[in-house]
Amino acid sequence: MDGDFACIDKDRASRTGCPEAVYCAGKTLEQSESIITRMREGDIPVLATRAQKELAERICHRYPDAEYDSISGILTVGRLAENAGGLIAVVCAGTSDLPIAREALLTARFLGSAAEIFPDVGVAGIHRLFSCLEDIRKANVIVAAAGMEGALAGVIAGLVSAPVIALPVSVGYGASFGGLSALLGMLTACAPGVAVVNIDNGFGAGYLAHQINKQTVAKPVEAVPGQHGL
Amino acid sequence: MDGDFACIDKDRASRTGCPEAVYCAGKTLEQSESIITRMREGDIPVLATRAQKELAERICHRYPDAEYDSISGILTVGRLAENAGGLIAVVCAGTSDLPIAREALLTARFLGSAAEIFPDVGVAGIHRLFSCLEDIRKANVIVAAAGMEGALAGVIAGLVSAPVIALPVSVGYGASFGGLSALLGMLTACAPGVAVVNIDNGFGAGYLAHQINKQTVAKPVEAVPGQHGL
Amino acid sequence: MDGDFACIDKDRASRTGCPEAVYCAGKTLEQSESIITRMREGDIPVLATRAQKELAERICHRYPDAEYDSISGILTVGRLAENAGGLIAVVCAGTSDLPIAREALLTARFLGSAAEIFPDVGVAGIHRLFSCLEDIRKANVIVAAAGMEGALAGVIAGLVSAPVIALPVSVGYGASFGGLSALLGMLTACAPGVAVVNIDNGFGAGYLAHQINKQTVAKPVEAVPGQHGL
Amino acid sequence: MDGDFACIDKDRASRTGCPEAVYCAGKTLEQSESIITRMREGDIPVLATRAQKELAERICHRYPDAEYDSISGILTVGRLAENAGGLIAVVCAGTSDLPIAREALLTARFLGSAAEIFPDVGVAGIHRLFSCLEDIRKANVIVAAAGMEGALAGVIAGLVSAPVIALPVSVGYGASFGGLSALLGMLTACAPGVAVVNIDNGFGAGYLAHQINKQTVAKPVEAVPGQHGL
Amino acid sequence: MDGDFACIDKDRASRTGCPEAVYCAGKTLEQSESIITRMREGDIPVLATRAQKELAERICHRYPDAEYDSISGILTVGRLAENAGGLIAVVCAGTSDLPIAREALLTARFLGSAAEIFPDVGVAGIHRLFSCLEDIRKANVIVAAAGMEGALAGVIAGLVSAPVIALPVSVGYGASFGGLSALLGMLTACAPGVAVVNIDNGFGAGYLAHQINKQTVAKPVEAVPGQHGL
Amino acid sequence: MDGDFACIDKDRASRTGCPEAVYCAGKTLEQSESIITRMREGDIPVLATRAQKELAERICHRYPDAEYDSISGILTVGRLAENAGGLIAVVCAGTSDLPIAREALLTARFLGSAAEIFPDVGVAGIHRLFSCLEDIRKANVIVAAAGMEGALAGVIAGLVSAPVIALPVSVGYGASFGGLSALLGMLTACAPGVAVVNIDNGFGAGYLAHQINKQTVAKPVEAVPGQHGL
Amino acid sequence: MDGDFACIDKDRASRTGCPEAVYCAGKTLEQSESIITRMREGDIPVLATRAQKELAERICHRYPDAEYDSISGILTVGRLAENAGGLIAVVCAGTSDLPIAREALLTARFLGSAAEIFPDVGVAGIHRLFSCLEDIRKANVIVAAAGMEGALAGVIAGLVSAPVIALPVSVGYGASFGGLSALLGMLTACAPGVAVVNIDNGFGAGYLAHQINKQTVAKPVEAVPGQHGL
Amino acid sequence: MDGDFACIDKDRASRTGCPEAVYCAGKTLEQSESIITRMREGDIPVLATRAQKELAERICHRYPDAEYDSISGILTVGRLAENAGGLIAVVCAGTSDLPIAREALLTARFLGSAAEIFPDVGVAGIHRLFSCLEDIRKANVIVAAAGMEGALAGVIAGLVSAPVIALPVSVGYGASFGGLSALLGMLTACAPGVAVVNIDNGFGAGYLAHQINKQTVAKPVEAVPGQHGL
Repeated sequence: MDGDFACIDKDRASRTGCPEAVYCAGKTLEQSESIITRMREGDIPVLATRAQKELAERICHRYPDAEYDSISGILTVGRLAENAGGLIAVVCAGTSDLPIAREALLTARFLGSAAEIFPDVGVAGIHRLFSCLEDIRKANVIVAAAGMEGALAGVIAGLVSAPVIALPVSVGYGASFGGLSALLGMLTACAPGVAVVNIDNGFGAGYLAHQINKQTVAKPVEAVPGQHGL
Repeated sequence: MDGDFACIDKDRASRTGCPEAVYCAGKTLEQSESIITRMREGDIPVLATRAQKELAERICHRYPDAEYDSISGILTVGRLAENAGGLIAVVCAGTSDLPIAREALLTARFLGSAAEIFPDVGVAGIHRLFSCLEDIRKANVIVAAAGMEGALAGVIAGLVSAPVIALPVSVGYGASFGGLSALLGMLTACAPGVAVVNIDNGFGAGYLAHQINKQTVAKPVEAVPGQHGL
Repeated sequence: MDGDFACIDKDRASRTGCPEAVYCAGKTLEQSESIITRMREGDIPVLATRAQKELAERICHRYPDAEYDSISGILTVGRLAENAGGLIAVVCAGTSDLPIAREALLTARFLGSAAEIFPDVGVAGIHRLFSCLEDIRKANVIVAAAGMEGALAGVIAGLVSAPVIALPVSVGYGASFGGLSALLGMLTACAPGVAVVNIDNGFGAGYLAHQINKQTVAKPVEAVPGQHGL
Repeated sequence: MDGDFACIDKDRASRTGCPEAVYCAGKTLEQSESIITRMREGDIPVLATRAQKELAERICHRYPDAEYDSISGILTVGRLAENAGGLIAVVCAGTSDLPIAREALLTARFLGSAAEIFPDVGVAGIHRLFSCLEDIRKANVIVAAAGMEGALAGVIAGLVSAPVIALPVSVGYGASFGGLSALLGMLTACAPGVAVVNIDNGFGAGYLAHQINKQTVAKPVEAVPGQHGL
Repeated sequence: MDGDFACIDKDRASRTGCPEAVYCAGKTLEQSESIITRMREGDIPVLATRAQKELAERICHRYPDAEYDSISGILTVGRLAENAGGLIAVVCAGTSDLPIAREALLTARFLGSAAEIFPDVGVAGIHRLFSCLEDIRKANVIVAAAGMEGALAGVIAGLVSAPVIALPVSVGYGASFGGLSALLGMLTACAPGVAVVNIDNGFGAGYLAHQINKQTVAKPVEAVPGQHGL
Repeated sequence: MDGDFACIDKDRASRTGCPEAVYCAGKTLEQSESIITRMREGDIPVLATRAQKELAERICHRYPDAEYDSISGILTVGRLAENAGGLIAVVCAGTSDLPIAREALLTARFLGSAAEIFPDVGVAGIHRLFSCLEDIRKANVIVAAAGMEGALAGVIAGLVSAPVIALPVSVGYGASFGGLSALLGMLTACAPGVAVVNIDNGFGAGYLAHQINKQTVAKPVEAVPGQHGL
Repeated sequence: MDGDFACIDKDRASRTGCPEAVYCAGKTLEQSESIITRMREGDIPVLATRAQKELAERICHRYPDAEYDSISGILTVGRLAENAGGLIAVVCAGTSDLPIAREALLTARFLGSAAEIFPDVGVAGIHRLFSCLEDIRKANVIVAAAGMEGALAGVIAGLVSAPVIALPVSVGYGASFGGLSALLGMLTACAPGVAVVNIDNGFGAGYLAHQINKQTVAKPVEAVPGQHGL
Repeated sequence: MDGDFACIDKDRASRTGCPEAVYCAGKTLEQSESIITRMREGDIPVLATRAQKELAERICHRYPDAEYDSISGILTVGRLAENAGGLIAVVCAGTSDLPIAREALLTARFLGSAAEIFPDVGVAGIHRLFSCLEDIRKANVIVAAAGMEGALAGVIAGLVSAPVIALPVSVGYGASFGGLSALLGMLTACAPGVAVVNIDNGFGAGYLAHQINKQTVAKPVEAVPGQHGL
């Protein structure tokens, strides 16, 4: 091979505030393991997504502080100190959406946010959503994970004042077309206050939620001091 | 021309219980006018959809009992006697969905059903839906017309016991792709009890709603007498 | 895990008239089994769709009144008392459509309707349809299951006065695009009186058929008494 | 301009048995007129499709034997001698399909076939098809023009022994997606014996029908004499 | 099960001139075997497509005159007597298109046509096509099987006077989208005289080719006697 | 008409923190005017999007504090007091993206945020982006508006620590497919920290940007006091 | 407006070897005119594409050396000195492809290449291509412009040793889907040596052809001297 | 089988300058092996793509000069003498794109070009690209391989004067739709100087890069002698 297969972006943390994550689905076991090892040698906390069980076993064996969530495939070694002021609510339409919803949840926690999950509150039985609405409203950012028609994001956005990150999930069959129907439904939600990440991109949703959440503490104090007393 | 341009299906009423409708969008003014005239000569009540204003003027001039709704483009001459026992509720997500929703409403009334419209109760402000839910629940059949993400149909289906006919509308822009997002959203609604008609097919939704509604009176008496006392 | 993975909608029956079903395809064996068990503890009749053989064996072992149909993957424990006055006809274009057609059939029966299936009567040999048309016409609701071009729904709708629920099936290859051609063909059927459920959604078709069928008895008597004498 | 804008394929007739046609939609009035004039100078019979009215007026003024059909936009100057043994049946689902169906009809006649049109016999009222089936069965080739779900082609193919050329038409709205639903429905017709031309390609359907029809006379005599006595 | 899973169309031969074929891909081994057995009991020659190897072994074991082509998956028991006057040329763009091209070839032969295959003559090396053009021109009908861009059909149609049946094949990767690019390319071929069957539908192409070929003998003599002397 | 055509959501402000906006594209001039008038009677500040020039003239004539931006079609009457602590940067790839980018800019300002626009800094000349990167980095939220390949959002997200709202624009031709390529490119941006709104939904982007920006002041103080000292 | 609407990339020429072009379709007349004027003030040669007639008149009036080609909408003021060693052949399938093909031709000439056009040599009459093949083979780079099935690019690539830039054109109707079928056909051309630009992007094809052509002179001498003797 | 399954295009080298390659994915092991053997018997250097490991083992066993790259699946036996003057740079966005990028790299080298790879320099961390930009600028042709949003090609094209061949890769999930998002993004890149090959077509990209690169030496000397002194 003509060179190395990966060029780790070591100063990403200083540039964007978050270390680089390792997406395992497109890599061999050996490639993923090698990248994680090198990151640990540089003392970088590791967040690996879509990690196969076998990789998790190897890494957990080598690093005692590694943690693996088999539902979402999230594998972490270390994590960032809590650094964000508010709460992230991850709302999940159905049982089948859990793996992706948990990817968002655990990503946000890894990066330093407090985050909670509200499972199985889809709009087909909308009273389930109302029964936990008070708790959801306490969050600074909401991640709404749903497959099929993806209506959850728009319904929530009409009920809260926090930004909603819509996370379409590729569950379902037929006209759900691998998450396309949920994606389109979320993009065209009538309620404003919604933006959408890629289908099944729990990592991206959790990352963005943390970015927003983090600012509620750090930025106002320094950047806009005059208005802080409001 | 080698023959006639239209072969009117005169015994349709006896076969399916409803006379044939005239879809004006794909016909010239003259073709539509000629078909309507021949139907009236045969004493068939006329329902014309997507009727241009000019056609409506000509027909209303000729037939005093003609009625034209300029919002939906529905033009009728005569109508069937009321022949269905229950009520049809046409629920409409936003102002922009009104032309298509009214096409459904007026079709159902033409065919002999009682029908009412509930405008501007989309899920972006879901309290508007709850405020008229009691009335909607009185209906035997519900037509849910919505564009954009089309979530209205699934949310209603989770709240009522009547069948819901989902009517996707081609309003909106961008990823609504001419009604495609609403169509997909309605097809993949998580709540059961929903079936979908073609985008903008208000006529089809009203027709089917009437077919269902009509049976609540006529069929039970003859076809399943033993269970009538339930 | 942060909470429970499923929040059973126990009062669904009182709200919509039907208990919640369990869609097994997106769940692990353990999740499905646990949900079914909890429903049985609450004395809720269970309808599970897309049930794997292994799940069926476990459930049938535990509950003597469980029944499993290996063609459709429908697994039931108990069922609702017959509560609808008319008949549902499930018409099926070809042998390959049977699994989905039977999902509709068994769902309708579980919910309390009488239902019959008419297999292999696709439009490529249209005399087969005509030979059972008299029987089909006896139904209050017709479910038309077909893959490929999906023409069956439209042809039937032109021949009967009952509502037709079109059920596109993902059989076929090439330009059938996983049921898309059948779906589009059914949505654009020229004959009115057709509405479409999601591709392969036999459950949804059977559920909606029952909802319509059920009203032919119950609703007219209470809700629209004045017109009952017609 | 660096050269000529069109390079007329003068020996096409000797190579493929048919002269080149002029597709006017993508050309300016002047380009079309100039091509037609040069073809006439070479004594080539002209078939122009999608001809604008203004072009037709200019050409009809110049050539007394020019004929223009305003419904289909077919403009001819001269035609080929009748050279095919059988009949072509152009079957047309609805009034809106007529322009394209006539394009097929007039193309086939221009090239030397006998051809007849059967308008408004779509499958929504299938008795209309049966009432002219005997006449359709007399044809050597059948062109089936339909929009929306395009079921006509498959239904006919199950009823006749002649080849069926399916001609999808871009009429309709919503999920007909500019003829796509008809195209897919025709491609996936369950009955064998169907092949499909491009959406709205009446010219191509008529041309191919003639090619097939022509062979029923010419080829057998010369090319396969031994089997002629069958 | 409520009835039989298949309703064999026994008089199809008298109606359309060809017996019904058995499409094995959507059926279980047992279903296919049972249908074939019943057809043989009725002395109907059998053409089964997409037959699995195991089915072929069982059938070949039972019926000595059964033949199986493992490349295309075509399994036949008996065949029709030769009944068509001309030759069918099956032209095949590349090695990967062979399974589907042979499905067309063997179908046509089963039905009673003489047919020959011209493999690996795609347009990327167009001299290969020209080197066998003389032989291709002898055919009454041409089937052009190609994947990727599907240009073969249009190029041939510009060089011959016989009708061309375009058969798109789902080989390739990326933007060939499972045969979609070939399908679209064939539908929009600039040369007239082309019609297209479904992606990978070798059976349909061979069937239609035979239908056309058969008429070159039978029909002219009986059906249009007066014009035979031309 | 059976009722009113619009049901203004008057307490939306208290529920979500922002008043309802008026989307004029799907409404008649009269409908828009009437809604605006009624909102003003209720003293609700008005933000109307896609306002036609004629509507703007009428409204500006009636309300002296109305403002109209002809590039974006944003029409406002009144605005909310500045209520957010940070800055929103609207970054715009090319001149053609300006109308939509300004819709986002003016929406954010209307709702009470400080916002600035950075026009014509697309990635085709990436030095233009770097020349204003310092200023962009000062923002709490970034809106990245781009058509064609939509690469701007991902490139920016890799360079900043603030959340990026990607706003695909329907400029371009051919394979940009009305903004679809930009939409897909933004959804699949390799850099995390991006979420996407609907094509051309400048309003939604500005609204969401404000929602995020607003929290940097209000929420931390009240809602999560314990963590404020971090 | 918050700033300027365009930020001209003045040192683009030094960076990429070519000045920036002005795409007029997405700009108002005034915006285009202003950009052109400022470029001329900086003595930058101007290439404007999709220029409206009215813009051309204004610019030609102001700058005597402006040239306008009404077929392609290319407007130039000045041009670069001839700076490339070889010839570019622009091959064009049909008359309807000319506007886009000429956009490529004139762009290449503006940038300093010699370029010639070969119109109306589509594969439907492939002898037309062979009759000018000798001349096409003299070119260093070939641009192949075609709509419909786009087969021209692949056929040429199999016949020449020069690189082929495929330029899909949005002519045609039905399944050409605005150039999509040509685009897919070109991307999947079986012959290697083809790369594709956006639909209707004559400018991009001409630009890239020039970039390749230019290197045949400049680069070898300076950059890779050692290998020049081969 | 009626003939041979492959017709090797032996004089391809003289016609296009490159021998034919063997695409193994659509062929059986035996077919690939047989073709390779026959090519070696004719002393033709062999480039096989998508070669399975087992095929590679057989071929490497038989021919000592065979080489196999397991990452890309490229298998070569012999290669062409170096015959091109400049360098090809293969730039690769991420680790997951390596297999396809190496297919391009090894194809170009096989054909006689010098080529280097620059892995993992995607735009999400754009400083990685800038750190090797000087080396990339030394190339005569650049291949830019990327999945997901495919922005790499456009960003590079804005920074260099050499032609860029964009190579979309089917890595990713969700809205990357098997490489479609990268393909569309590359086709609509705002920077000119980009053309695109099929998704995952590393072979085609390497082949075309070599064709361009080769001309920088050979053609100028013979074809355009007068300008050689520049």
